[in-house]
Amino acid sequence: MSKPEVIYGRNPVISLLETNRKRINKIFIAKGIKYDEKIKNIIRMAREYKINVQEIPRDRLDKITQGVHQGVAASVSPVEYTDFNTLLENIKGRQNSLIVILDKIEDPHNFGSIIRSSASAGVDAIIIAKRRSAPVTPAVEKASAGTVALVPIVQVSNISNAIEKLKDYNFWIIGAEADAEKYYFEQDYDMNCALVMGGEDQGISPLVKKNCDILTSIPMENNVNSLNVANSASILIYEIVRQRILKNKK
Amino acid sequence: MSKPEVIYGRNPVISLLETNRKRINKIFIAKGIKYDEKIKNIIRMAREYKINVQEIPRDRLDKITQGVHQGVAASVSPVEYTDFNTLLENIKGRQNSLIVILDKIEDPHNFGSIIRSSASAGVDAIIIAKRRSAPVTPAVEKASAGTVALVPIVQVSNISNAIEKLKDYNFWIIGAEADAEKYYFEQDYDMNCALVMGGEDQGISPLVKKNCDILTSIPMENNVNSLNVANSASILIYEIVRQRILKNKK
Repeated sequence: MSKPEVIYGRNPVISLLETNRKRINKIFIAKGIKYDEKIKNIIRMAREYKINVQEIPRDRLDKITQGVHQGVAASVSPVEYTDFNTLLENIKGRQNSLIVILDKIEDPHNFGSIIRSSASAGVDAIIIAKRRSAPVTPAVEKASAGTVALVPIVQVSNISNAIEKLKDYNFWIIGAEADAEKYYFEQDYDMNCALVMGGEDQGISPLVKKNCDILTSIPMENNVNSLNVANSASILIYEIVRQRILKNKK
Repeated sequence: MSKPEVIYGRNPVISLLETNRKRINKIFIAKGIKYDEKIKNIIRMAREYKINVQEIPRDRLDKITQGVHQGVAASVSPVEYTDFNTLLENIKGRQNSLIVILDKIEDPHNFGSIIRSSASAGVDAIIIAKRRSAPVTPAVEKASAGTVALVPIVQVSNISNAIEKLKDYNFWIIGAEADAEKYYFEQDYDMNCALVMGGEDQGISPLVKKNCDILTSIPMENNVNSLNVANSASILIYEIVRQRILKNKK
């Protein structure tokens, strides 16, 4: 069994209780903190779901979390990744699926907030590489505001191979690339889409870029040459959502 | 004179050299680091602009920056905020201005990346409150990837008063509100817009919300109840950019 991890902060723990409480082994509350509505809510839910709540000294909680815990933390079993073949099975025959591929996103804050936007947009899966990408650490879970359970996350050994496979399943591979001539909103996304986002420093790696069917860019003024990758991902994901909602309404 | 601040990291220092080198007092390079292309570029630009470059021991740089400095930092004079009346003077008579109002954004990473997206979108100004908002700290500048000089930032004592004033200048006040019935892409932004984003925890404060002319939401699935505020801001800002680019093309 993998060793347990710690999720901390009020909203992340509440979100975990709401979305994936089976992962929680125990909840820690710092002695002496004010029992505000959120803490009361956490204790109420924990009682309801028969999850053990333990009061511990604040300095012990500091050590366990190594971050801003707001007086509460949960010991949890690690995130379970989804198998790539299971994903392929699930998307077989789909016509408007959306998958997000992260090519070497290293910052946990960025990765976590991309998970959050993806969960909210109803993205079918996030694919990451096993190496040179941030795995789903507690910091990622915190940045995701507890939404990790809402999007299947798939680790693959090789992004390019995964892309080839997705093409076999009728996916169009769309790369976000600052130099692309086509703006992201000039593309029609009425098809299965896999959106590829490159890492913070280098963008999409050359080999992966070569495998993209379409490259699109976000218009930028003032000689700004890139946006934060989580912001870019959110803009692109929500353009796809926008188009699809408007089409269904028609 | 306010005391100098420190900007650190390779890209932020390069960006600072490119966009606002007058703020730089001195550049520090850690002894013994590899002189890669970026560091060479920094030294070359510093020489060209006659900016003092000093090699210092890595542990001294650690102390100066208190962050991941990648071997380079710049001592800079603090950001100069733009006066609200100067902003009003500048936007007088405009028809498609875009201003972003941040109502108690407290996380420097979020604030910085909103500045970056705003700079890239050509936003005319960002308005923040003097109290209970992150000011432009070095951490904010780092997250902005050196784009702080590209957007006027205005500190006001009272957001509601600023909104009233903007209305006098023919601005429509658009609040981002998770519960709003109207989706953000159902709104036509062919007018002067001031986009109000609420803080991470509480959203827009009730009094400010009452002052908004229009409230719009981002569609969310999976019972997700909010996005990261920098991601939301980027989605909303770029919907306005998208609409305006498409209109000008027609």
